[in-house]
Amino acid sequence: MSTKERLYLFDTTLRDGAQTQGVDFSVDDKIRIAETLDALGIDYVEGGWPGANPTDSAFFSEKRGLKKATMTAFGMTKRVGRSADNDPGLAALFDAESDAVCLVAKTWDHQVELALGCSLDENLEAIEDSVRAITKHDREAMIDCEHFFDGYKANPDYAIACAKTALAAGARWVVLCDTNGGSLPHEVEAITRAVAEHVPGDNLGIHTHNDTENAVANTLAAINGGVRQIQGTLNGLGERCGNANMVSLLPTLLLKPDYADRFETGVPVENLKQLTHVSRLLDEILNRSPNRHQPYVGASAFAHKGGLHVSAVQKDPATYEHVPPEAVGNKRRILVSDQAGRSNVLAQLEAAGIEVDAQDPRIKRLVDEVKEREFLGYAYDGAEASFELLARRALGEVPHYFEVESFRVLVERRFNAMGELVTVSEATVKVAVDGATIMSAGEGNGPVNALDQALRKDLGKYSSWLEDLRLADFKVRILTSGTEAVTRVMIESVDGDGARWSTVGVSPNIVDASFQALMDSITYKLLRDGAPAAL
Amino acid sequence: MSTKERLYLFDTTLRDGAQTQGVDFSVDDKIRIAETLDALGIDYVEGGWPGANPTDSAFFSEKRGLKKATMTAFGMTKRVGRSADNDPGLAALFDAESDAVCLVAKTWDHQVELALGCSLDENLEAIEDSVRAITKHDREAMIDCEHFFDGYKANPDYAIACAKTALAAGARWVVLCDTNGGSLPHEVEAITRAVAEHVPGDNLGIHTHNDTENAVANTLAAINGGVRQIQGTLNGLGERCGNANMVSLLPTLLLKPDYADRFETGVPVENLKQLTHVSRLLDEILNRSPNRHQPYVGASAFAHKGGLHVSAVQKDPATYEHVPPEAVGNKRRILVSDQAGRSNVLAQLEAAGIEVDAQDPRIKRLVDEVKEREFLGYAYDGAEASFELLARRALGEVPHYFEVESFRVLVERRFNAMGELVTVSEATVKVAVDGATIMSAGEGNGPVNALDQALRKDLGKYSSWLEDLRLADFKVRILTSGTEAVTRVMIESVDGDGARWSTVGVSPNIVDASFQALMDSITYKLLRDGAPAAL
Repeated sequence: MSTKERLYLFDTTLRDGAQTQGVDFSVDDKIRIAETLDALGIDYVEGGWPGANPTDSAFFSEKRGLKKATMTAFGMTKRVGRSADNDPGLAALFDAESDAVCLVAKTWDHQVELALGCSLDENLEAIEDSVRAITKHDREAMIDCEHFFDGYKANPDYAIACAKTALAAGARWVVLCDTNGGSLPHEVEAITRAVAEHVPGDNLGIHTHNDTENAVANTLAAINGGVRQIQGTLNGLGERCGNANMVSLLPTLLLKPDYADRFETGVPVENLKQLTHVSRLLDEILNRSPNRHQPYVGASAFAHKGGLHVSAVQKDPATYEHVPPEAVGNKRRILVSDQAGRSNVLAQLEAAGIEVDAQDPRIKRLVDEVKEREFLGYAYDGAEASFELLARRALGEVPHYFEVESFRVLVERRFNAMGELVTVSEATVKVAVDGATIMSAGEGNGPVNALDQALRKDLGKYSSWLEDLRLADFKVRILTSGTEAVTRVMIESVDGDGARWSTVGVSPNIVDASFQALMDSITYKLLRDGAPAAL
Repeated sequence: MSTKERLYLFDTTLRDGAQTQGVDFSVDDKIRIAETLDALGIDYVEGGWPGANPTDSAFFSEKRGLKKATMTAFGMTKRVGRSADNDPGLAALFDAESDAVCLVAKTWDHQVELALGCSLDENLEAIEDSVRAITKHDREAMIDCEHFFDGYKANPDYAIACAKTALAAGARWVVLCDTNGGSLPHEVEAITRAVAEHVPGDNLGIHTHNDTENAVANTLAAINGGVRQIQGTLNGLGERCGNANMVSLLPTLLLKPDYADRFETGVPVENLKQLTHVSRLLDEILNRSPNRHQPYVGASAFAHKGGLHVSAVQKDPATYEHVPPEAVGNKRRILVSDQAGRSNVLAQLEAAGIEVDAQDPRIKRLVDEVKEREFLGYAYDGAEASFELLARRALGEVPHYFEVESFRVLVERRFNAMGELVTVSEATVKVAVDGATIMSAGEGNGPVNALDQALRKDLGKYSSWLEDLRLADFKVRILTSGTEAVTRVMIESVDGDGARWSTVGVSPNIVDASFQALMDSITYKLLRDGAPAAL
């Protein structure tokens, strides 16, 4: 039996993280991220605010298949002046499919009067009635105490009264929120310690923002002060300067003895090996460039420049590496000569389910090819189908299907016969299949779509295999890789079975990059469904 | 007379910051940054390591005209087995033009034996002799204690002996370095407090790295522990995950009462108004996109999304702003999101500096147009220039410049005369300027680039206004908006003055969407620079 104290991890990427400028998750994005967090071992996944917008309502309209995590819906305490049973906001929450409900409540006296325009007692009643309503609907209840630290500084008795009221009404967790992100670590530690004298730490959570670059430190300070639930987001996503970065907190809590010896979480330490991948996956979904300098998972986090460091790090990694990079799925980068490629590729092969002897000489060729392609700008985090094709090609496992000899795409904006300004796209392709050359043309609402139409119009015996293939998403990024700016295109495809896969293409030309990703997608589909090789 | 304690600020952007992957300062860059730091009021500017590379040697080859800051040169303690007078590294330092010299010394017993291969006493002698040599050459002496925290944990007596030896030999400062960045705030506070019992805090400095995302917090923890010199870099530049971010530390120390009431620095509080500019200037010099989410100075640091927050922040800014944005030279942004209502649009107009009466009937038309465009997939959150154009057009403030009558773009992949597979892009455009129709053709490495080339080849009298316009970034996203899938393109542009703006285009056709964003970018540039209207 472990004698460690349990720390609970609460991820709000899909709710508070969705407040980030420029972030706009689709329902499918939300499902993919929720499943990823669940697989990692996060205790609570806050999925959004049902009723606040169509995406969040759709996300909560059915039960999502999480294995372990508690799906949490966010909302507000009931309005003053109506009963909890009669509050439309709460009704939308109880209609939503969730295991827990987290309600934001005001706990700063000034804000209660200014923003809610009600008495301090009426606000306490609203907290009590709302929590009771949650438990009555068989959900685990939590209260997010908005502006808790500002509230505590202004009127500690009232802030604590809010927390105690929520707890007495049946809340599992009372979460102390530093809403405007202005509190500093020494304040957070002192205040959480003081609050923990009134509300047991096992019922206290912490929610911080990064406005002074202390969100992670404030979270650690709150743990030191007694709090046992911590809230954060992947890559520190969140409005303004972001929330506490769960990707930085996790390895600190699991690998640093002062925390790891004292606490246990729902995330097994071996799952940390997925952390770099999870972090990059979120960036891919958001179509953002990963932050090279991100703690633990950034491409530069274990990069060593300069001969002195390099030889020291090779003699004794601990001198310049505070944790082993492999522990978080990252790798050491020696900027002169990268020797970390091989084990990384072996790990990726294993992840793709490709069995191969580590001593196989083809592995070296594959490692070289991956390195060369990464130098050109390819990224296989988030384009696993392209990696699998590359690997299986190196192992001779991909049959020859067909060959595109040439293509041409025309995009024209002009006035049509009706005098309307229209933009039209047409494509022609020449494909060799089973010894014959087939020429097809297609129209589309964009150059890539026209190319896709032309390509699939007639692929001889392969046409029927591709009928249920659909392009679900298309992402483009401009990179400066190697010596010039190139375009990287990632395509996500789905088929009739609901299978999804992502492929990548890189070229100075966006149409060419799209074509590569499209060809990989088609090839992957043929391979996956066991289409016969060309004659 | 102030009764506050003095905190000294030491900037190492030009030395430790220069270790960042991809950073390569020229001598002119270094001079510009050193002068900027001096004007801000930083006490020490560490300019580099004379003798280690040609740039740093050139930088220190003459006295730089700093008004107040102490120019500091970095190096290593003398080698064991030779005298300080006879050490070539120290000789290069004393030839360099600097006011202070900071030498890195080993203080972790294990490292002394492993890396230096000398006895613990020989290392103490090297520290003592080296410090004596600095003061003999009339420079202020400092010692950077490498791996101090790991060293202290392994052998506290020896780590402290190193610090005391440096102090006794005449060092003004003994700097405690968390070299591999693995220490956590509670450790840093406890260890600095313990060290301050042996070496006065007025002689202690702190140098942290961000490997656990705690560099800023570790610096604050060290101040709490008694340290009175803090080292950092602009924007947290530095190898791996970076150093402590001086841009985050400064406003915390100057604006937060727990520090501001207790300490004074060489930076007057009014100089903080330059901070956003200083931070962006560094990014310009490095040709990096500024981090929108950077604490205090990021474009999103005071951005508010969602009607609830917007109305609250307008009633009482302190609710969602922990400091006033103007205090650090930043500004509040009200994001126009899909919840855009009238108050959001009015606030956004005010932020863009557009004066208009709230009762003006054109406001309603603008709100309706924003809503309609958002339904189609436009997002003005992050494309402020397109929003400004839309608003100014609604108010009749955008002159007519030119009109694109038609364009045509061809992308072809084929074998060239050498038998190589190539992809080529060509564009033709027809533009009406001042009553004449101009037809131009352009080639590019992609369709948008070809279109941009053709468009800018001849725009009549406007061509000269666009010479310094450059496309810096290009982002594409596929959305399902309104009734069908559309492509949203965001373009970020920069000009010769370092101004940056973002524009957006939406269409089912990626080339068309890019064309719209491109047209907005060009129009914004002409409007901004006051180009004359068409005849």
